[in-house]
Amino acid sequence: MKAVRVHEYGKPPTIDDIPEPTLQGPLDVLVKVDAAGVCRTDLHIIEGQWAEKSGVALPYVIGHENAGTVVEVGAAVGSVAVGDKVILHPLVTCGLCRACRAGDDVHCAGSEFPGIDRDGGMAELLRTSVRSCVRLEEGLEPADVAALADAGLTAYHAVRKAVPLLHPGADVVVIGAGGLGHIGLQCLVAMTAARVTVVDRSAEVLRKATALGAHRTVLSDGGQVEQVLELTDGDGAQVVLDFVGEHGTEKEGVAMTRNAGSYFVIGYGGRLDVPTIDIISREINVVGNLVGSYNDLDDLMTLAAMGSVRLSTQKYPLTDALTALDDLDGGRVPGGRAILTS
Amino acid sequence: MKAVRVHEYGKPPTIDDIPEPTLQGPLDVLVKVDAAGVCRTDLHIIEGQWAEKSGVALPYVIGHENAGTVVEVGAAVGSVAVGDKVILHPLVTCGLCRACRAGDDVHCAGSEFPGIDRDGGMAELLRTSVRSCVRLEEGLEPADVAALADAGLTAYHAVRKAVPLLHPGADVVVIGAGGLGHIGLQCLVAMTAARVTVVDRSAEVLRKATALGAHRTVLSDGGQVEQVLELTDGDGAQVVLDFVGEHGTEKEGVAMTRNAGSYFVIGYGGRLDVPTIDIISREINVVGNLVGSYNDLDDLMTLAAMGSVRLSTQKYPLTDALTALDDLDGGRVPGGRAILTS
Amino acid sequence: MKAVRVHEYGKPPTIDDIPEPTLQGPLDVLVKVDAAGVCRTDLHIIEGQWAEKSGVALPYVIGHENAGTVVEVGAAVGSVAVGDKVILHPLVTCGLCRACRAGDDVHCAGSEFPGIDRDGGMAELLRTSVRSCVRLEEGLEPADVAALADAGLTAYHAVRKAVPLLHPGADVVVIGAGGLGHIGLQCLVAMTAARVTVVDRSAEVLRKATALGAHRTVLSDGGQVEQVLELTDGDGAQVVLDFVGEHGTEKEGVAMTRNAGSYFVIGYGGRLDVPTIDIISREINVVGNLVGSYNDLDDLMTLAAMGSVRLSTQKYPLTDALTALDDLDGGRVPGGRAILTS
Amino acid sequence: MKAVRVHEYGKPPTIDDIPEPTLQGPLDVLVKVDAAGVCRTDLHIIEGQWAEKSGVALPYVIGHENAGTVVEVGAAVGSVAVGDKVILHPLVTCGLCRACRAGDDVHCAGSEFPGIDRDGGMAELLRTSVRSCVRLEEGLEPADVAALADAGLTAYHAVRKAVPLLHPGADVVVIGAGGLGHIGLQCLVAMTAARVTVVDRSAEVLRKATALGAHRTVLSDGGQVEQVLELTDGDGAQVVLDFVGEHGTEKEGVAMTRNAGSYFVIGYGGRLDVPTIDIISREINVVGNLVGSYNDLDDLMTLAAMGSVRLSTQKYPLTDALTALDDLDGGRVPGGRAILTS
Repeated sequence: MKAVRVHEYGKPPTIDDIPEPTLQGPLDVLVKVDAAGVCRTDLHIIEGQWAEKSGVALPYVIGHENAGTVVEVGAAVGSVAVGDKVILHPLVTCGLCRACRAGDDVHCAGSEFPGIDRDGGMAELLRTSVRSCVRLEEGLEPADVAALADAGLTAYHAVRKAVPLLHPGADVVVIGAGGLGHIGLQCLVAMTAARVTVVDRSAEVLRKATALGAHRTVLSDGGQVEQVLELTDGDGAQVVLDFVGEHGTEKEGVAMTRNAGSYFVIGYGGRLDVPTIDIISREINVVGNLVGSYNDLDDLMTLAAMGSVRLSTQKYPLTDALTALDDLDGGRVPGGRAILTS
Repeated sequence: MKAVRVHEYGKPPTIDDIPEPTLQGPLDVLVKVDAAGVCRTDLHIIEGQWAEKSGVALPYVIGHENAGTVVEVGAAVGSVAVGDKVILHPLVTCGLCRACRAGDDVHCAGSEFPGIDRDGGMAELLRTSVRSCVRLEEGLEPADVAALADAGLTAYHAVRKAVPLLHPGADVVVIGAGGLGHIGLQCLVAMTAARVTVVDRSAEVLRKATALGAHRTVLSDGGQVEQVLELTDGDGAQVVLDFVGEHGTEKEGVAMTRNAGSYFVIGYGGRLDVPTIDIISREINVVGNLVGSYNDLDDLMTLAAMGSVRLSTQKYPLTDALTALDDLDGGRVPGGRAILTS
Repeated sequence: MKAVRVHEYGKPPTIDDIPEPTLQGPLDVLVKVDAAGVCRTDLHIIEGQWAEKSGVALPYVIGHENAGTVVEVGAAVGSVAVGDKVILHPLVTCGLCRACRAGDDVHCAGSEFPGIDRDGGMAELLRTSVRSCVRLEEGLEPADVAALADAGLTAYHAVRKAVPLLHPGADVVVIGAGGLGHIGLQCLVAMTAARVTVVDRSAEVLRKATALGAHRTVLSDGGQVEQVLELTDGDGAQVVLDFVGEHGTEKEGVAMTRNAGSYFVIGYGGRLDVPTIDIISREINVVGNLVGSYNDLDDLMTLAAMGSVRLSTQKYPLTDALTALDDLDGGRVPGGRAILTS
Repeated sequence: MKAVRVHEYGKPPTIDDIPEPTLQGPLDVLVKVDAAGVCRTDLHIIEGQWAEKSGVALPYVIGHENAGTVVEVGAAVGSVAVGDKVILHPLVTCGLCRACRAGDDVHCAGSEFPGIDRDGGMAELLRTSVRSCVRLEEGLEPADVAALADAGLTAYHAVRKAVPLLHPGADVVVIGAGGLGHIGLQCLVAMTAARVTVVDRSAEVLRKATALGAHRTVLSDGGQVEQVLELTDGDGAQVVLDFVGEHGTEKEGVAMTRNAGSYFVIGYGGRLDVPTIDIISREINVVGNLVGSYNDLDDLMTLAAMGSVRLSTQKYPLTDALTALDDLDGGRVPGGRAILTS
């Protein structure tokens, strides 16, 4: 089958003909990949940033945002069947450790991550586990939702954790309403009656945010902290969701957070650097956010099926994967997500 | 009456004869101060560290850990009466803002802080509010509990927030088991079935911690992070309570925290400096902690009355306040808290 | 001033000329009542059903859903001023007991209830407390929101408690979408992404429910339990909000509740009668609901200001109070709430 | 192998020689049953009370409180190994449904219950799943903990749910401190600083409760409701844990519950019958309780290993199973639990 493989870090991947994957355990599932999201993390993998962290042996197939059709199932698989359309949770988890059993499968003690530490989904077929398969409701197509499998799931997860902190009229700030942020914004609008303020460097992004339901927007032009404070009676917001996490938003996000409020770190790249006296005298919380759980992905699919969360995508055939990666790197996938289809 | 007043920052306070305070509002309460805790914050005030933050006009009376006997009450006061023994919540709160009404009076939009921004309790009499008075059960004496009013309350508050995170056998680390820490330790033992590991630089403090119920102790000699990780199967603790917050514990505390766990900042003085990628990839929380609420103080008095929380104190007459401050500054109040009595 | 007073249970109230109320304490507030909701509870009071429970001395002024304009404030009042438009929380609470301090002022140890156990708001002026005054945002008029002060507040409160139980796509059933229920429905739509099914005996009410955002409706014609089960794959709903609480909904509501789900009792009049084996084998919860807290009322005003919660009202001058009571009793206030204005 | 089998409802089971069970799926585990608890439910099964509910085909092996040693594992089992000592969660769950993935495996959409609806543990060998195996720490023996697998797990589960409702000094009432209740009592003492009042009909049971840490005891002699109210300043308790659930405790338990408090149903047999007006005017909760989750069982084993929860047991060889059942039925297993050992 065709697959996009990394052979050497720092060099472009190639599209290879490789043997089809086969089932290796009784809970394994083989999926025809109808749609694979192309993500900035793929660029970082190719550059080698994940080499040490993943420890994966080269060459291997990238692609960690996958949706498709079940084509074969292991002996102990009962909850999905051949022909089912599915979106795949990015992790393959054990289901047996305390974290998995507590509903926190993201912190599974023995998970694997196809596309990161084993062969992923930029290929015709992908081996995964029944534990990772979320069946798609009628009306949802793999190509429309694949990009929600990782990026969208992270945004949903953060918002779901923020919901209990947001009474009607509470202030929530979204820093960065791009790929993840605009999904987070849609989740906030669907799940809370909070007052949403979006902060972004792009006036175009702010216009779209307003169309998606943001109550107020602030252009990130240097005065954004003051503006947010002014919009919140000088207090700041109960929750700040930072989808950037670098280039100064770490400091600005903390400054926009109300006393006793919570600053959610979602984007990354920078450093959080705060005197401990500020943390205690303001009694603020800093909340890390990774990808969501399997149930989170199921919830997100419900939001997608309800029409509450929509993505605009730009499709490429699998064989144009290099073009898609290149377009992403060059900023030529405006306002959307690149999806490989086959 | 006699009162310990700061006249000029950087110089020792003096014991002055000043007019007795009088009731100023219908909810005011006048308390004969039977016991006033002497706290490291008092030293910082005298040095001038709080000058700008408090904006208090000099001279003024210090003392923010107070317990005593009600001697006069305002026209609208019904819930305490003359003769009642009380411990005083350190803040005088409004009771009307959203925070007060939500049980989070510490974040009252209009609170005052006797001993910090208005006359405090190192005096024969103190004006406070009925909102700050917790009546003492039979058997509790002001001199035994006064030091719980601020330091103890902070420790209890942090532990109370940590309780839902601590299933039986979960790991909790207490960094620093001195003044606040040894109260936090007692609260943990009383309120959870978690496995408590105490980390401290003093072998003597660790011995006392064991006597108070710590399951394991780690001497802070450079290898403390490795030891904590080893004691927790390499994972770290679900909760780390850092009662130091400086001299490197900020970094060590984060390193001792398990993925998806929480690092509680209670002590201060240093800086938290963490790459955002670590916050998100490990999905950790940083939790700021200020003093507890009125209800927290009520709970803490219950723990004191049950004998679950005990303090060792060293008493001085009010007129020896300068000696007490000096002893505290010079490290001559070993293993205990200095209390002014009158 | 004019006031609607009950002189004898079982007889219609009369509109009397009585002396204006005066401030009695430093936290008291005098409000010109611009709008007073007429509620089914008023009919029950007149019939004498509340005689023993309230112990109020006759004659007295009824009316417990009040909004208006501040005309005089007590000496210690700072957070509202003469001229402010306010809606009044139905209870006058102490602010000092554990419940008040924990954000649960509805369970205040020493509350009073104007209109039930002391003079209420069907009058030109009402004495209340600063603790009961929620200032109205620009654009909200007393006559439009008065009926939210008690009925609406109860519905909001129940929904707010249900929110954490309702992930996107979870099933929630609203039994009875009349006065309280249609407010609860609007709150659910604003605050969750749950799938809302409304059950009612009136096809007209169901049509309106659909317009307000109900996803599915079920006519209560005898087959409603089976229909709800069918709509929920045989499982029942995670949350059932019973705004009726009599005439069999107590049993039906439990039957519509999913295992491990929660049956919320809001309406009343009937009996809950369930074998304990069903409670434990299905591990269901029964959740009682009273009126909401002060902060709940503040939240509800935010929803009203956002346009998320709307009421249709039928206005009567205060002097037509008896007509309004009569119309309500006779079912002649269709789809709305009667409001006395002055 | 030897096994205790029911052949006909209403007749005593017999001890049969039957073929050993064999692994049937890749996650199956074969356990040598070192200890099997004898439970009142076994008597009910023999009487035929569960015939319809379980639908099990006769003859079959009873026994649902099992602990032992792993002797064989399926192809996909990695987390337990031959030779491991284990206690078995009573349910065999799927791990894939929303409930299992949310940490609520007790409400698994496809669980089985060995000893109820398939062959159980009163035998030399038992087939179970890796999902049901909790490994025992050093120092815990199967015979000492087997009875915690179901009865103890139910008590722990209820207490764990009650913990967030119990601040230091809050009142909790335990109705019935027998088999389940005395475990619940020990869990309360280990996990909270609440004030525990035990109500029981036996003075002997109350004496033991005091020894286990109950703060106050009330003899159930007709005046128990009044006594509990008196001990709680007329308010009742924040939490009432009813381990009886019949013979009038359903009504008494509700009466002992404070406004805004929670009545936990654990024992069963009676009916809960409450006017809906009482549920709403007092805003009380009724909380059903089934057996605990896998993680709950893991927590309970931690409490057992810490010595916080202890059981007194009476051992019988497997071949004396009929005597054990008879002794239990005749009230000849005083203050303890009968355990079959092999």
